[in-house]
Amino acid sequence: MDVLIYDTTLRDGSQGEGISLSVEDKIKIARKLDFLGVSYIEGGWPGSNPKDMAFFQAMRDYPWENAKLSAFSFTRKAGVRVQDDIIMKSLLESGVKVATLVGKSWDFHVLRALETTLEENLSMVGESIAYLKDKGFEVFFDAEHFFDGYKRNPDYALQVLETAAQAGADCLVLCDTNGGCMPWEIAQIINQVRSRSTAPLGIHTHNDSACAVSNSLIAVQNGCVQVQGTINSYGERCGNADLCSIIPNLELKMDLKCLPDGKLKHLTEVSHYVSEIANMPGSNNQPFVGYGAFAHKAGIHVSALLKDSLTYEHINPEAVGNHRRVLVSELAGLSNLQYKAQELGIDINKYSDETKQLTKKIKELENDGYQFEGADASLELLLRKAFNQYEDYFQLKNLKIILEKTVDNEIISEAMIKLAIGSEIVHTAAEGDGPVNALDNSLRKALYDVYPEINEMHLTDYKVRVLNGQEATAAKVRVLIESSDQHEKWTTVGVSENIIEASYQALVDSINYMMMKRQLFAERTKRLEA
Amino acid sequence: MDVLIYDTTLRDGSQGEGISLSVEDKIKIARKLDFLGVSYIEGGWPGSNPKDMAFFQAMRDYPWENAKLSAFSFTRKAGVRVQDDIIMKSLLESGVKVATLVGKSWDFHVLRALETTLEENLSMVGESIAYLKDKGFEVFFDAEHFFDGYKRNPDYALQVLETAAQAGADCLVLCDTNGGCMPWEIAQIINQVRSRSTAPLGIHTHNDSACAVSNSLIAVQNGCVQVQGTINSYGERCGNADLCSIIPNLELKMDLKCLPDGKLKHLTEVSHYVSEIANMPGSNNQPFVGYGAFAHKAGIHVSALLKDSLTYEHINPEAVGNHRRVLVSELAGLSNLQYKAQELGIDINKYSDETKQLTKKIKELENDGYQFEGADASLELLLRKAFNQYEDYFQLKNLKIILEKTVDNEIISEAMIKLAIGSEIVHTAAEGDGPVNALDNSLRKALYDVYPEINEMHLTDYKVRVLNGQEATAAKVRVLIESSDQHEKWTTVGVSENIIEASYQALVDSINYMMMKRQLFAERTKRLEA
Repeated sequence: MDVLIYDTTLRDGSQGEGISLSVEDKIKIARKLDFLGVSYIEGGWPGSNPKDMAFFQAMRDYPWENAKLSAFSFTRKAGVRVQDDIIMKSLLESGVKVATLVGKSWDFHVLRALETTLEENLSMVGESIAYLKDKGFEVFFDAEHFFDGYKRNPDYALQVLETAAQAGADCLVLCDTNGGCMPWEIAQIINQVRSRSTAPLGIHTHNDSACAVSNSLIAVQNGCVQVQGTINSYGERCGNADLCSIIPNLELKMDLKCLPDGKLKHLTEVSHYVSEIANMPGSNNQPFVGYGAFAHKAGIHVSALLKDSLTYEHINPEAVGNHRRVLVSELAGLSNLQYKAQELGIDINKYSDETKQLTKKIKELENDGYQFEGADASLELLLRKAFNQYEDYFQLKNLKIILEKTVDNEIISEAMIKLAIGSEIVHTAAEGDGPVNALDNSLRKALYDVYPEINEMHLTDYKVRVLNGQEATAAKVRVLIESSDQHEKWTTVGVSENIIEASYQALVDSINYMMMKRQLFAERTKRLEA
Repeated sequence: MDVLIYDTTLRDGSQGEGISLSVEDKIKIARKLDFLGVSYIEGGWPGSNPKDMAFFQAMRDYPWENAKLSAFSFTRKAGVRVQDDIIMKSLLESGVKVATLVGKSWDFHVLRALETTLEENLSMVGESIAYLKDKGFEVFFDAEHFFDGYKRNPDYALQVLETAAQAGADCLVLCDTNGGCMPWEIAQIINQVRSRSTAPLGIHTHNDSACAVSNSLIAVQNGCVQVQGTINSYGERCGNADLCSIIPNLELKMDLKCLPDGKLKHLTEVSHYVSEIANMPGSNNQPFVGYGAFAHKAGIHVSALLKDSLTYEHINPEAVGNHRRVLVSELAGLSNLQYKAQELGIDINKYSDETKQLTKKIKELENDGYQFEGADASLELLLRKAFNQYEDYFQLKNLKIILEKTVDNEIISEAMIKLAIGSEIVHTAAEGDGPVNALDNSLRKALYDVYPEINEMHLTDYKVRVLNGQEATAAKVRVLIESSDQHEKWTTVGVSENIIEASYQALVDSINYMMMKRQLFAERTKRLEA
C-alpha cells in the first residue's frame, strides 16, 4: 500500500454524539472494515470500559483477511512505573499485537490537563513505548494536539516526537486534536518535522474548521504514510476526518493505493452498513457515498448529463459503488421527468397531454408538501398511473383505530379495517404496538389471503418531518417509509396534518409498489418463457 | 472588507435536494443575510422562473443595510444578438444593479453541452458582459468549470478569462463546478492565472471531494478577494462551500475582515434561521454552528475542559454565537453529569447515594433507547426529580383516542382525557388534526383552567427515530419534541413501541418543564423583591 488507512471508528468514532455501539455492533463493523481492506482497525481502549475488553476477547482468534487489530491507550500515568500501570496491563490482556499510545505534545496540556512536569511527560512517552516494543508490539504514537503544541512551543513538541522515535515507535502520528488547523499550517509544520526526523509520519485530524479531509490529503502530499480517520466522519464535536472521502481521493485523485484491488467499489456499501449498525442516519450530501452525492436537480445539469456524464460529475459514481440520481422537482423542468421515465422504459413523448397533466399534478403535490426526491417508489406509481400502466390492488372502505391508556399503562392500540380486493370485501381487526403497527397488521391480515407475498415485505425505516412547525401538533407532517423485501429497498411518501393518515398513504403506496414490481417481474418471466 | 462574501443560498443553494423556497422564504432569508452583513446576495435567476422574478420585484425598494442584491444569468444564447436575448432582458427587468454571468471556460463543455464553437462562446462571454457594463451594472463573471477546463486546455480557459476582463468584468470568479479539485491544484492554478492577469479574482467551490471550505480558504490565501458560497452548504449534490465555516475561518484564523463589526457572533443564529426557513434539519456536527460543534462526550475531555476550555476547543464557541454542551451518556462518566448539575446549580457531591442511583437510572433509560444528549429538558427533569427539586404538575387517569377513516376521507381524530391536577379531577375531550394533536389539545384543554400559561407554549419540532427497523411498524421509536415559548426553546424525549405513547411522554415532559421553569422564575422574582 502507498498509504496505510488506520480506522478508528470503533474508538474515536464512538465518541460522536448519538453513537453507542454494543460489543455485537463492534464485531459487525470490524468485520466489514476488514472486508473493505483498511490496514488497521482500532478496536477500542481496553482499560477504559468492560465493553471494549469484551470486544478484544471476542476477536482474539478472528481470521483477519486484510486488517490488523489495534488497541488504543494513554501512555502510563504520571508517577507510576510502567509495568505497574493498570491501563498498560489491560493493553497486554487485550491480546492485540498493535498498540496506539496517545501522549501529550503540547506543553500547556501537560501542565494544565495532566498537571505534571514536562520532563515526566517525556518519560511517560518514552517508557510506555519502549515497554510495549519490548513485549513485541507494533507501536504507533499519537502525538495529541501536536500542531497546536508546535505552534506555541515547537521545541517541546519536537522533543516529544524525538523521544517517541528513540523509544522505537513505528509511526509518529501528528494529531490536530482540536481540529482548528488551516491546510497551509499542516503542510508547513509537517515539512519542518520532516527536516528534523526521518521517522515514518501519520496524520489524525478533526473537522472543527471543516478542513479535516483536506488536511489529511495535504499531509499525505507532504510525506505522511498513515492516515487515521473514521467511517462517515463519526467522532467528537464536528467529527474525525471522513475515510469515505479520504480513501477515494487518495485512490482516484492522487493515484495512491490504500485498499486491496477491487475494494473501492464497496465503499458506499460499507458507509451505509456502518451507518445502519451505528443507527446514525446517513448524511444525504456526504461526498462520494451520500445518497445525494450524485443527485442532479438543475434542469440544465440534467440535460447536459444526458449528453455526457463527465459534464457535471467529478468521478464515475460506480467507482465508489454509488449511483446517479435525477431529482424530479419544480426546479427541474421536463428533462428530469424524461430521465426518470426513460429509466422505467416509458417513452413520455408519446403522451404529450398526459405528460403535461402529470407535471401539473407533481407540482400541486409538491405544493402540498409531498417530496418525490426521496420517494422514488411513490413517484414511480404516479408515473405509471399517469400512463395507464398501473392500478391500485385494493380499496379502503373503512378504518377505525382505538387507542387506550390507563394509569401506569402504556397505550394499547387496535385497528378495524374493511377493504375491497377486486370484488371481494374483507373485514378484519388487529392489535399492534402502536397505531401505525395496528394499521399495518390489519392491512396485512386483510390482504394475506389474496396476496400472501405481503409477508415478504418489511418496513425498515420510518421518518416523520414536521412541515410547518409553527402550527404546533396540528402541523402538516410528511412521512417517508422505507420498505424492503429480499430483492430491493424502496421509499414511499405520505402527507397530512394527521400522522396516521400520512403513514397510511405511504404504507399503501409501499404495498402497491411491491405488488406491482412482482406482477411486472412475473409478466417478464412469462414472456421470456413463451 | 478584506474579503467580499458573496452568498448564493437563494440561487445555487436552492438547487440542493429537498430545498424549495417560496418568494416569502426568499425575502426572509435575504433580510437575514443583509443583517449578517455579507457583501452580496444572489437572489436568483430572473429569466428562469416566475418565482425568482417575483422576488426581485418584491425587493426593488428594500433598504439594504449591508448587502448588494445581485441576479444570476447565463451569458447570451449562441447565435442570438445580446440585445434580443430573453434572459438578458429579464436581467434588466429585475431592477438589480449587480449581475453575475456564468459562462463556459472548459472547451469540452462548449462543444458537448452548449454544442457551439469555441469562438462563439468567447463572443457570448464578451458581448454579454460589455452589454451589461454599458447599462451601468457591476458585473461578475463566473467561469464555470474553470479548474477542470484549465487542467485540460489552459490556453482556452485563460482566453475566456481574458475576454471577460477586457469586456469589463469587475471580478473573475473561478468555479470548481464539479467539486473535484484537490487543494494544491487550486493554489497552483490560481497562481498561474495571477501571473497572467491582474483582474480581481473570486472563488466558487463545491464539496464533492470534501474540500470546498479548504479550497476556498486556499484561494483567498493565494489572492482571491471574493468568496462565493451558501449558508449551511446547501447546493446541488454534496453542496456548495459552507459560508458558516468560511466566514469564521477568515475572521478568526486568517484575521481577514469579511463581516461588519460585531456580526460574527450572530452566525449560529443565521445558520439556524436559514435552516428553519428552508425546512432542512441542521447537521448536528456542522463546524462552528452545529448544535454539537462544541459538544463534549469523552470523560477525559470534559475533566480537562473543567480546568481550561482551550484544552479541547479550537475557538471560543461564543465568538460565533454557539455554546459548549456536555453530553451525558454511558461513555461519559461522572464529570459530565457533574458539569450538567453545576449548570443547574445542583451540588451533586452532597447527594452521593442519589447520584449513584441517577447514574444507574440514566444508563437503564439509555439502554431502553432514550437519549438525553439531544433532550436537555427531559434530562433536567430527571436530575431535579432525583434531587427532590421537582414533582409532576398533574397525573393521567385515563386517555382514549379514536381515529376513523372512511372511503375518500382523511382520518378524523378525537381524544378523551381524565387528569388529576392536585386534588381536582378534570375529564374532557377534544378533536385534533391527528392523534398527537388531539392528545395535545385535550391535555391543554384539561390543564387550561388551572394553568392558563399552557397557551404560551408551542411545539416547534417533532422528530421520530425508528430504533430497531427490522421490527417493522412494531419497532421501538424515539420521539423528540422541541417546544418554545417567548423566552426559550427546549427539547424532550419519549420512547415506546407506540408512537403515541412516546409522543405522550415527550409532550408531558415538555409541559412539566415549562411549568417548572415558570415556578422557579416566580420564586426567584419573589426572593429578589423580598
